[in-house]
Amino acid sequence: MSSRLMKLKDVLGRSKTSSPLAFAGVSRPFAESRRSFIAARRHVANGRNLRTMSDSSCEKCLTLDNMNPHIKVMEYAVRGPLVIRAGEIEKELQNGAQKPFNEVIKANIGDCHAVGQKPITFIRQVLALVAYPELLKDDKFPEDVKERARIVLGGCRGGSVGSYTDSPGIEVIRKQVAHYITERDGVPSNWEDIILSAGASDGIKSVLKLLKARVGGQKAGIMIPIPQYPLYSASIAEFNLHAIGYYLNEEKNWSLELDELERSLKEAKSHCNPRGIVIINPGNPTGQVLTRENIEGIIKFACKEKLFLFADEVYQHNIYAPNSAFHSFKKVMSEMGPPYSNMELASFMSCSKGYMGECGLRGGYSEIVNLDPQVKAMLMKSISAMLCPTVLGQATMYCVVNPPKPGEPSYEQFMEEKCGVLDSLKSRAKMVEETFNSIPGFSCQVVQGAMYAFPQMKLPPKALEAAKEKKMDPSTLYAFELLESTGICIVPGAGFGQKPGTYHFRTTILPQPEKLKAMLDMFKQFHVKFVEKYS
Amino acid sequence: MSSRLMKLKDVLGRSKTSSPLAFAGVSRPFAESRRSFIAARRHVANGRNLRTMSDSSCEKCLTLDNMNPHIKVMEYAVRGPLVIRAGEIEKELQNGAQKPFNEVIKANIGDCHAVGQKPITFIRQVLALVAYPELLKDDKFPEDVKERARIVLGGCRGGSVGSYTDSPGIEVIRKQVAHYITERDGVPSNWEDIILSAGASDGIKSVLKLLKARVGGQKAGIMIPIPQYPLYSASIAEFNLHAIGYYLNEEKNWSLELDELERSLKEAKSHCNPRGIVIINPGNPTGQVLTRENIEGIIKFACKEKLFLFADEVYQHNIYAPNSAFHSFKKVMSEMGPPYSNMELASFMSCSKGYMGECGLRGGYSEIVNLDPQVKAMLMKSISAMLCPTVLGQATMYCVVNPPKPGEPSYEQFMEEKCGVLDSLKSRAKMVEETFNSIPGFSCQVVQGAMYAFPQMKLPPKALEAAKEKKMDPSTLYAFELLESTGICIVPGAGFGQKPGTYHFRTTILPQPEKLKAMLDMFKQFHVKFVEKYS
Repeated sequence: MSSRLMKLKDVLGRSKTSSPLAFAGVSRPFAESRRSFIAARRHVANGRNLRTMSDSSCEKCLTLDNMNPHIKVMEYAVRGPLVIRAGEIEKELQNGAQKPFNEVIKANIGDCHAVGQKPITFIRQVLALVAYPELLKDDKFPEDVKERARIVLGGCRGGSVGSYTDSPGIEVIRKQVAHYITERDGVPSNWEDIILSAGASDGIKSVLKLLKARVGGQKAGIMIPIPQYPLYSASIAEFNLHAIGYYLNEEKNWSLELDELERSLKEAKSHCNPRGIVIINPGNPTGQVLTRENIEGIIKFACKEKLFLFADEVYQHNIYAPNSAFHSFKKVMSEMGPPYSNMELASFMSCSKGYMGECGLRGGYSEIVNLDPQVKAMLMKSISAMLCPTVLGQATMYCVVNPPKPGEPSYEQFMEEKCGVLDSLKSRAKMVEETFNSIPGFSCQVVQGAMYAFPQMKLPPKALEAAKEKKMDPSTLYAFELLESTGICIVPGAGFGQKPGTYHFRTTILPQPEKLKAMLDMFKQFHVKFVEKYS
Repeated sequence: MSSRLMKLKDVLGRSKTSSPLAFAGVSRPFAESRRSFIAARRHVANGRNLRTMSDSSCEKCLTLDNMNPHIKVMEYAVRGPLVIRAGEIEKELQNGAQKPFNEVIKANIGDCHAVGQKPITFIRQVLALVAYPELLKDDKFPEDVKERARIVLGGCRGGSVGSYTDSPGIEVIRKQVAHYITERDGVPSNWEDIILSAGASDGIKSVLKLLKARVGGQKAGIMIPIPQYPLYSASIAEFNLHAIGYYLNEEKNWSLELDELERSLKEAKSHCNPRGIVIINPGNPTGQVLTRENIEGIIKFACKEKLFLFADEVYQHNIYAPNSAFHSFKKVMSEMGPPYSNMELASFMSCSKGYMGECGLRGGYSEIVNLDPQVKAMLMKSISAMLCPTVLGQATMYCVVNPPKPGEPSYEQFMEEKCGVLDSLKSRAKMVEETFNSIPGFSCQVVQGAMYAFPQMKLPPKALEAAKEKKMDPSTLYAFELLESTGICIVPGAGFGQKPGTYHFRTTILPQPEKLKAMLDMFKQFHVKFVEKYS
């Protein structure tokens, strides 16, 4: 245990350094773009030379040295330097560059439609009608689509989606969300606890920023899983909070273990003031689905330690493993009774994932329960300055929580499209897991849910040395070489956090089956060559 | 001058108090909801009683006492307690309550469609097509609409608006925005300086948060006009910056005078470190349009004082006065040549205003020029964690910067709709100004542009006393009584800032002509009764 502790310190310990190259919160695991920082430094030096040549009375007001340090330290690996390079390669290909591949395969981001998933017709028909209500007269559109459109328009001031809505969203949509949750959980949901948002990220940031950065002379700490979704480390850095990493147990299919929560919290208490805990279920990037028993344990832990619960449940529709089921934190907590049913919880949902995959429309909601009424008033006030989330995103969320019912004209097509997506994702989850496990030196846990696999790979010592020389995490070196050789864009494990000495990457399971198969074949071939190169 | 200085201190001086009831940044002018704070305090006391009754092992994690203080102090008057009360009254009317009026007239917010403005057909047709591309086959839609839709879809990964775009937006739309600016100004715009956003507010906050809160041991200061648009005071409070108010000169039609900038800055330097200046042109809430000469003076001042320029130019299409014209800061700065043409500037635009009034779609852009390349890299990184602005909002912005051209099939209808809105706003601007000036004790400056009037009114001493007793600004007392008696909802001057001893309100000029006339009649009658009541 003590050697494990030392390794953890190695991973998490740099957060208190003040070097401009250090990252706030969870630091070393997110050091993937150190290279870009070094490049930026060089750039700064050049900038200084340039500035001395220009008129000194108009030097830059805002420089790397005097800008907001919390923005400087935040990192967001899903869109980091690797993705920027992927974009450059795409342009090179467009301009006729000769490469060993014809296209970039973006397996770095859960961007369903970008890789060929078709939109759900019902959702898009409702959107067309609310955007251009003239179409309500058109016989082409089924009656249930028109009914949903009329309800959304009825909730809009002046009957137009071009009007501002209340800041937490249109009342009739908030009520429908509450109804959806009540049906899902068998536990009542209050529509006034529902806040619509521009995707889940917007909702998460709105709640996270309610926390005071320093409490009792120490930074406020938020427990996050390692590996985690980088929105958390990025927002925690931006808000000057402290990230307390707790490891998921890879050997047990990325399970969330209570003694690890205890260990992580105990260690953190010496240098921060723990205030909240983030749970991502189903897991991103790890794809595990928590059991009900596990959730009960986490809730008891959070209650004992007075932690605000952040339940990231955006993949609640994406469950593939036969013995897995989604249990919401709200449901479990409520069914446990007092004191647990009185705990403060924010649960987040999005229209970007599930079977709909409508990332670009930016729809989402938070359910926020048991908040101190004064704090809730402050939350409502703080979102009001941003006026309202996009009304068309709200309309999308409405379709997700009020889909066609049996007997309605759109029902059959809707179910066919929905099940088509989810069944295919289920078989792709299996294909990805099995293929990676067939590559020597790879191990990939079961993708029980969500949209990603997070395989571990053994890398040859010379690759580790080469990475060290380039001041990169070995997973980053691997990802860059994969991209340049095959056009496959994944996210290195360093962007999510990984145990020291282990190397991973996140890939989505989203490319369409044929392309996914081809991608996995290329991956296999690349890995053999990579190992050869560094042997 | 010294008595004026004293008054200014009275207005701005409370920002350094640490009382939980004090507001950060510009404090007293935004104290409108002190009443609600007092109510909240009472609530806290009740909450404490409640908590002692519940299980002590699950006390609230997050309370007014331990939450983020910067969220607590922010205020956003446009959606404050008065608007909440207006919503309650609407519900009371729906439930059959008897009132001296039949409806609430929301003149508090620039929400065009909510008060009867019709959407522009061209924009909505493009939106319907990109949302549901099946409609591209429909003969009902003109070819220019289809062409715009195809271009937007061509810029979307997988040809779907449901895909994430690059974080600063779709390249083809950014290029079209740059083209629009180049045509508007006759000065080149670089598409890589364009960042699409979810409305202008989103863009403003993204840039504002680049500033470090404390520089050289002092809070960083941002100069904002008084009166101002409350997004600024709210965001400045949230980011823990300091608001430096500079007064607009009401007597000279809310002109922005250089000696007032000098005075304001000089005074501020003793207690903060000035870093930026916000200019709203055309003005909100004041409706003035800056002359080119005036803009040149402001640019010289900002250059001399090394201030980052924030140009809020969302009302650039809303110019009514015959001798007024819109000049962008970017154009004037560029034409002035070095060193001014090298200054850092962020200019903001939105699809919520102008002739389109598409508030709910959340489209907007920032043009950010001359940023230090490293700072720009940090800005791009920081927006990437929020993934991308709504694609349908981006598509709306595309229509605004690429409207139908002469000869295209939608051109005539588009011009008719656009000019219809702008001509009608022009005559409503005049009607509002003239009516308010006809009320004894009122004075209203010319509404040269934007969508608001900000009249001043003389209030009887007994009304001032009554307000004092209720711990309200007299403008707030007035606005509450107006709402209860007539259903007219305006925003008290206190929400924007006003010189001590003067009382104003902001009303939009947006209600449709018939309703606006009726509203102004009711207003007149109310004012007579109000003065009688307090005589």
